[in-house]
Amino acid sequence: MKAAIVGSTGYGGVELIRLIQNHPYLEPEVLISSSQPGEPLARAYPHLIHLSCSFEQLDMERLCTADLIFFATPPGVSGAWAPALVEQGKVVIDLSGDFRLDSPDTYQEWYKRPAAPAKWLEQAVYGLSEWFHDQIQTASLIANPGCYPTAALLALAPLLKEGIIPPSSIIIDAKSGVTGAGRGVKQAMLYCEVNENLRPYKLDGHQHIPEIERFASLIAQENITVSFVPHLVPMNRGILVTIYADNMNNYTRADVREIYRQTYEAAPFVRIHENGWPETKFVQGSNYCDIGYHVDERTGRIMVLAAIDNLMKGAAGQAVQNANIRMGWPEETGLGFSPLFP
Amino acid sequence: MKAAIVGSTGYGGVELIRLIQNHPYLEPEVLISSSQPGEPLARAYPHLIHLSCSFEQLDMERLCTADLIFFATPPGVSGAWAPALVEQGKVVIDLSGDFRLDSPDTYQEWYKRPAAPAKWLEQAVYGLSEWFHDQIQTASLIANPGCYPTAALLALAPLLKEGIIPPSSIIIDAKSGVTGAGRGVKQAMLYCEVNENLRPYKLDGHQHIPEIERFASLIAQENITVSFVPHLVPMNRGILVTIYADNMNNYTRADVREIYRQTYEAAPFVRIHENGWPETKFVQGSNYCDIGYHVDERTGRIMVLAAIDNLMKGAAGQAVQNANIRMGWPEETGLGFSPLFP
Amino acid sequence: MKAAIVGSTGYGGVELIRLIQNHPYLEPEVLISSSQPGEPLARAYPHLIHLSCSFEQLDMERLCTADLIFFATPPGVSGAWAPALVEQGKVVIDLSGDFRLDSPDTYQEWYKRPAAPAKWLEQAVYGLSEWFHDQIQTASLIANPGCYPTAALLALAPLLKEGIIPPSSIIIDAKSGVTGAGRGVKQAMLYCEVNENLRPYKLDGHQHIPEIERFASLIAQENITVSFVPHLVPMNRGILVTIYADNMNNYTRADVREIYRQTYEAAPFVRIHENGWPETKFVQGSNYCDIGYHVDERTGRIMVLAAIDNLMKGAAGQAVQNANIRMGWPEETGLGFSPLFP
Amino acid sequence: MKAAIVGSTGYGGVELIRLIQNHPYLEPEVLISSSQPGEPLARAYPHLIHLSCSFEQLDMERLCTADLIFFATPPGVSGAWAPALVEQGKVVIDLSGDFRLDSPDTYQEWYKRPAAPAKWLEQAVYGLSEWFHDQIQTASLIANPGCYPTAALLALAPLLKEGIIPPSSIIIDAKSGVTGAGRGVKQAMLYCEVNENLRPYKLDGHQHIPEIERFASLIAQENITVSFVPHLVPMNRGILVTIYADNMNNYTRADVREIYRQTYEAAPFVRIHENGWPETKFVQGSNYCDIGYHVDERTGRIMVLAAIDNLMKGAAGQAVQNANIRMGWPEETGLGFSPLFP
Repeated sequence: MKAAIVGSTGYGGVELIRLIQNHPYLEPEVLISSSQPGEPLARAYPHLIHLSCSFEQLDMERLCTADLIFFATPPGVSGAWAPALVEQGKVVIDLSGDFRLDSPDTYQEWYKRPAAPAKWLEQAVYGLSEWFHDQIQTASLIANPGCYPTAALLALAPLLKEGIIPPSSIIIDAKSGVTGAGRGVKQAMLYCEVNENLRPYKLDGHQHIPEIERFASLIAQENITVSFVPHLVPMNRGILVTIYADNMNNYTRADVREIYRQTYEAAPFVRIHENGWPETKFVQGSNYCDIGYHVDERTGRIMVLAAIDNLMKGAAGQAVQNANIRMGWPEETGLGFSPLFP
Repeated sequence: MKAAIVGSTGYGGVELIRLIQNHPYLEPEVLISSSQPGEPLARAYPHLIHLSCSFEQLDMERLCTADLIFFATPPGVSGAWAPALVEQGKVVIDLSGDFRLDSPDTYQEWYKRPAAPAKWLEQAVYGLSEWFHDQIQTASLIANPGCYPTAALLALAPLLKEGIIPPSSIIIDAKSGVTGAGRGVKQAMLYCEVNENLRPYKLDGHQHIPEIERFASLIAQENITVSFVPHLVPMNRGILVTIYADNMNNYTRADVREIYRQTYEAAPFVRIHENGWPETKFVQGSNYCDIGYHVDERTGRIMVLAAIDNLMKGAAGQAVQNANIRMGWPEETGLGFSPLFP
Repeated sequence: MKAAIVGSTGYGGVELIRLIQNHPYLEPEVLISSSQPGEPLARAYPHLIHLSCSFEQLDMERLCTADLIFFATPPGVSGAWAPALVEQGKVVIDLSGDFRLDSPDTYQEWYKRPAAPAKWLEQAVYGLSEWFHDQIQTASLIANPGCYPTAALLALAPLLKEGIIPPSSIIIDAKSGVTGAGRGVKQAMLYCEVNENLRPYKLDGHQHIPEIERFASLIAQENITVSFVPHLVPMNRGILVTIYADNMNNYTRADVREIYRQTYEAAPFVRIHENGWPETKFVQGSNYCDIGYHVDERTGRIMVLAAIDNLMKGAAGQAVQNANIRMGWPEETGLGFSPLFP
Repeated sequence: MKAAIVGSTGYGGVELIRLIQNHPYLEPEVLISSSQPGEPLARAYPHLIHLSCSFEQLDMERLCTADLIFFATPPGVSGAWAPALVEQGKVVIDLSGDFRLDSPDTYQEWYKRPAAPAKWLEQAVYGLSEWFHDQIQTASLIANPGCYPTAALLALAPLLKEGIIPPSSIIIDAKSGVTGAGRGVKQAMLYCEVNENLRPYKLDGHQHIPEIERFASLIAQENITVSFVPHLVPMNRGILVTIYADNMNNYTRADVREIYRQTYEAAPFVRIHENGWPETKFVQGSNYCDIGYHVDERTGRIMVLAAIDNLMKGAAGQAVQNANIRMGWPEETGLGFSPLFP
């Protein structure tokens, strides 16, 4: 099956190329880059010097030669292009935030730009593979989750569904590697500024907050508000979220273990750590989400941790997982390799 | 004035050598290392190849040739040796945890070893320079604070003293560079295991928790319990704590700014960030503690951040600051240099 | 086909597990670890927590249940065990240096220990895949090349074969990531000692020198001596060699390009950079060897650079490539994925 | 004495601020930044939030309020401004390359821009402190050496002066931390592109080559040509040069030791390593140049290594050292601190 990637020059785009190239049923047929059309892939990415293709301009007709279209683009691009593609019968998997929120006003508030048409916001299916599997199977427009929301929701959802943490007690302290910031050229992302440094940012509001709250609320069946502080960690890949919540009914470690075990026993990409806690290196280069927890009797809180590779389960990996689910292929197709260690 | 350093081969010890060597009134007269007595300093630390001294055995008589004795040792050493030195009229500054807790039982519980005699635990003065300045001026035995407690308490204390955060609402998400783990040779601390990795640890109880709670309670005048999760960050130096607490009476950003401004306006090593938030690189190699905050109206919480260099304000730097206070020298003596950037 | 890995707990061993697990015709049937027999794989390597096997003791009978045996062991182990296995009709691929030199005296001189029996040294085939392809096809005992020799020889061999660089003019300045030092626990390999540091080492003689000289001489058909200085670079994976040699007959850039093009046009894992030069990140996690060069008219020298991932083309990747060649499978089987970037 | 810094927003400029601030006889009176005039220092560099000054426009009159003017600027700036300042009786220390070459044609060839007037090129004194000490004492215009030339020349000069290495046998393999590339915002210098990567660059000609050759020739009293390949290493600070040269008359290790010992015994910032070899971390944050060597009997070559902190001895540190020499202050004034370790 032919795949197109819009936004191939970003880190998410090039990770999609890596995965699709290695996928038995997908072929990276069209590589779109608005910023560098005509440029050989090997010039932008010399690690792919063995490939001879070039980037192309964003063009509707060309896009339609593919069956499956991935958007790994800045806000606004998929919002403008995806609806027409879906209307032409294409399947669109959007790695940007354009279709993750259902309220145009909320989108406008957090993304500081107009939302896609409300009709399409409603129609889009949220691609958190483990929790919206059935809807993804028939979706035409899949809103692939953000990196932080993927980690946070996979960690929180079992507790929320069980109803054991109060809706206003959730604090998410999040840490991300630097690929999360993309390949944009900014002084703050220079090697010397990031290396040997730990940087908190966007304490006054990260656009992943409404996404987390929307789906946490949906799963909990009540209104969830979260505190969320992201930090930039000097490493290329990896997200770790450390989540704190009140332990409403004194659930024990055994209770919590059972909740996670049951929830994810059939999920090929979620691994629960009973001994020790997840580290980002445990998932490097893979599609796994590793989860660990601590039931703290001293303070009456539960801490849950989740680690993902932000470019994999947090972006391109989950997008391919969703493509597999949508196309009826085994969920692990093209994703069955182990993490790169060390 | 002659200084002795016990535990000179650790990272804290060698940082003390750097500082004392550069201090106008102190001289590194005696360098003790139980593990490598007789070894030239330059062999253990070739970056000091221009110095010709050697490590010596731990010996009471030799120690007493110094006036001021720093312990940068594992648990148990200063507990055994410091009392006799104090009784001989020496001033002892202990960078280990042996004298930071007043209850022998609590020490035993968290350090898994017997405490120093209760009499000496009570006599020791806690060396959080900005908060116990007066007691330090006359102390014979100064318990230099731990790295995490220094950052956490400097950030929290102004709010605790003002009484604006509820005693059980405090969550401290802490991140540390790798020097915090010392120079001990363990597989988990090999370059390849730490690099490109973010690792949470000791969720089931870090020994800095009772230290934070003891002095937080003292300052708040009520019983404080905290949740505390430390993380290992792939960088050599630096601690950042991200603290979450409920905002009891809807204090505004202006209120909080005023509290911090007033508290620290005379403190030479505390800097408040009004724009943006502290990053660990801002304090690298210096004795500063940088503080920032966010008053989050959406969730009714206050977030406070503090960044220190764990070997400086979190260990050797604060020890020298305390020596300055104790000896009546200007507080910034030998510490007045700017951070190393980048 | 069943594979055994002896020395599974090292970085080379665990990379073999990653590759063999992903290989369509190989299965990681036996995992041997003398240091941690009985220990579950997931405890030594939590990134493989989804696998349930355990390490086993080194045992002849157990080894013989496999058809193909990889040794990723310290010096001496394969020298002692491989001959008997070969006599039992097994195919052995040895990632250690035990069978790379043909002279027992040279081995003794550089490895400071007795060599394997001379008969076996002679029988072993050197597994530099691109240059000894035919011999590998029928070999029972394959001496997989060292990481530095792989990079150095792939870069040098075309020029040596052509006879355009004088035998005594070769200088190899080599740089390696830290996985090259293995998982052994030493102070010099602690994160804080390696991070933000560049360290030259073994100027007085690295054991890869006789290996490079032996095969360089073989290819050049004359006696080659090289200067070789290795350096430790603060990164996990990657080797770059920068080679300097005199340009005997004023060969031009076009001449050199043609030599490399012709030599490697059928080699699936060698990529020549015409624009720019190879960087280690271009090959990260892959089996590629990237080569670049500069013909310096100003000084009459040719510089050649080669980059590999030391755990892949420099160890486990080339071992699997050799297994493919030996078994008659397509050379890229199980190795056809792109580098991980960034 | 009042100092002005032109180009204060670069890494070299901010390192000068750090040093001058800590210098007993110098004061950072005027901070010039053409790119950000009017901007508070603390906004460009929040690690200096305790300082309240702002950057100023480049202005002749304002500059002349200082006695000593440092240029840490891109090519062309000091070439245009320094002569007038010197004519006004000011002392200028130029950290750029504008006055390091005596031939305008050579400058034009390597810097691709017109040189400063030949008269001023001749008048400038090369600020390699250990080798041009006497001339520096009376110089008005000091051309502070480049980072690579500082390391290469300090390592080579004793051998060149002794005449023991042939003029055309010198190969310099150089490795630099990323601050050497400055604070300019380029994709190639983004964290994710540099981290976990080793990158050779400018094999076709680095502008430090003519500088090295000019002064190597001057010291050797014969025409020296060198091969020079620089590499970018994933660390912030530090340069290591690994130099290979033929050992003309079979000098022994003892001979070479004696040469280095005698040459540098009175040099406060050059340290010779007899055991082991220099590493960049040994000099981090300090003004030391650490030198080591190996006399290789096997190949008849001498290898010499030198490590410096490129922002210190390779830029701002040596500039202050030169200011000390010029002003008649002790050479170590304001530079007497130990390296930061680890």
